[in-house]
Amino acid sequence: MKVMLRKKILDKNEQAALQNRGFFSKSGLLCINMISSPGSGKTTLLARTIQDLASKLRIGVIEGDIKTDTDARKIRAAGAPAFQIETEGACHLSAQQIKDALKELPCAKLDVIVIENVGNLVCPSDFDLGEGVRVVVLSVPEGDDKPRKYPGSFSKADVVLVNKIDLLEHVEFDLDKVKRDIRRLNPDGEILQVSARTGQGMQDWYQWLRERKEQSA
Amino acid sequence: MKVMLRKKILDKNEQAALQNRGFFSKSGLLCINMISSPGSGKTTLLARTIQDLASKLRIGVIEGDIKTDTDARKIRAAGAPAFQIETEGACHLSAQQIKDALKELPCAKLDVIVIENVGNLVCPSDFDLGEGVRVVVLSVPEGDDKPRKYPGSFSKADVVLVNKIDLLEHVEFDLDKVKRDIRRLNPDGEILQVSARTGQGMQDWYQWLRERKEQSA
Repeated sequence: MKVMLRKKILDKNEQAALQNRGFFSKSGLLCINMISSPGSGKTTLLARTIQDLASKLRIGVIEGDIKTDTDARKIRAAGAPAFQIETEGACHLSAQQIKDALKELPCAKLDVIVIENVGNLVCPSDFDLGEGVRVVVLSVPEGDDKPRKYPGSFSKADVVLVNKIDLLEHVEFDLDKVKRDIRRLNPDGEILQVSARTGQGMQDWYQWLRERKEQSA
Repeated sequence: MKVMLRKKILDKNEQAALQNRGFFSKSGLLCINMISSPGSGKTTLLARTIQDLASKLRIGVIEGDIKTDTDARKIRAAGAPAFQIETEGACHLSAQQIKDALKELPCAKLDVIVIENVGNLVCPSDFDLGEGVRVVVLSVPEGDDKPRKYPGSFSKADVVLVNKIDLLEHVEFDLDKVKRDIRRLNPDGEILQVSARTGQGMQDWYQWLRERKEQSA
């Protein structure tokens, strides 16, 4: 029964995801689903991206958190429209929640929608939100064993951003091992090294993002 | 229907948790359920605890991961018996899994069982495993907004270990804010600052652990 109900929930999610995908396609919007552990630096990364690309890409953000609207406020302070979903305990965002949230954003004036999913490296990976691109963020202090331990998330990423690369000298982290493990799970995924704090590597991410936007237009 | 099924799963879990609790009580075992985000340093913290308390407490470990037996191997290398549960996608451990795993450990020769839950700051907090003590680990690089964002986990902790305290000088992290936020959610929980890597603060944790063990005997 557990399996059947899970299938039912996923089927319902797939329907809403399909509608979202249709909406993004029709509107020429690139939608990004950003997934990571709590505290990998997604919000800081997004805020910097919004500021640095202000003259080039109009970005809107849907924030998912169990509680608080802290992240939506940070995104607005960086200059982008943001809508906060508080899941009140739920461990992931659903396609229906995204469908509803899209009505709260000025989509006609945007090029890119970023969904910052609930901080959780397990559950969000099972739920298609209708996105065009899936980004997984892994921060250096989390350790180099994470791709092997959480294959579901890393195998479905279009790009893995290895963030907080400025902390490499302060913690044990074998970058080559991480790249090997991700490539084995996900031969076609891109891997970029960034520090949202220092700016290191961010230009590569911006270039990747703009190329994807052009492809989706 | 989703809510009803969730209740059914939780009821079933409660039954197994009750049986586990009875077993721990009868055996004089202290059981610890350790919960955190991926990469907070649970395994390193446990390995050091096992080594430093080798002459004082006999510790056995049940490891939960989506994939790999990396952590069980690290625990065995530190000198303790360990049993690995690979959840194959599931986002938390269940009381039934613990009940089964207990048969694989030499419980009669142990003082403490530590369950290292799946790295996930959301889902494990809803599932009682029959433990006597719940430990939540928050590592400094995850950021000081985590207690507010994940109240379900922090509100139920008997002790919060703020780990990787040696990285305080390299990242932004307001320790006073974290303590205030945890105390508001959880007035009776203990908060200890540790670094499993440098050893800083670990004696306080050992003392807390041994006192809890004495209380449970």
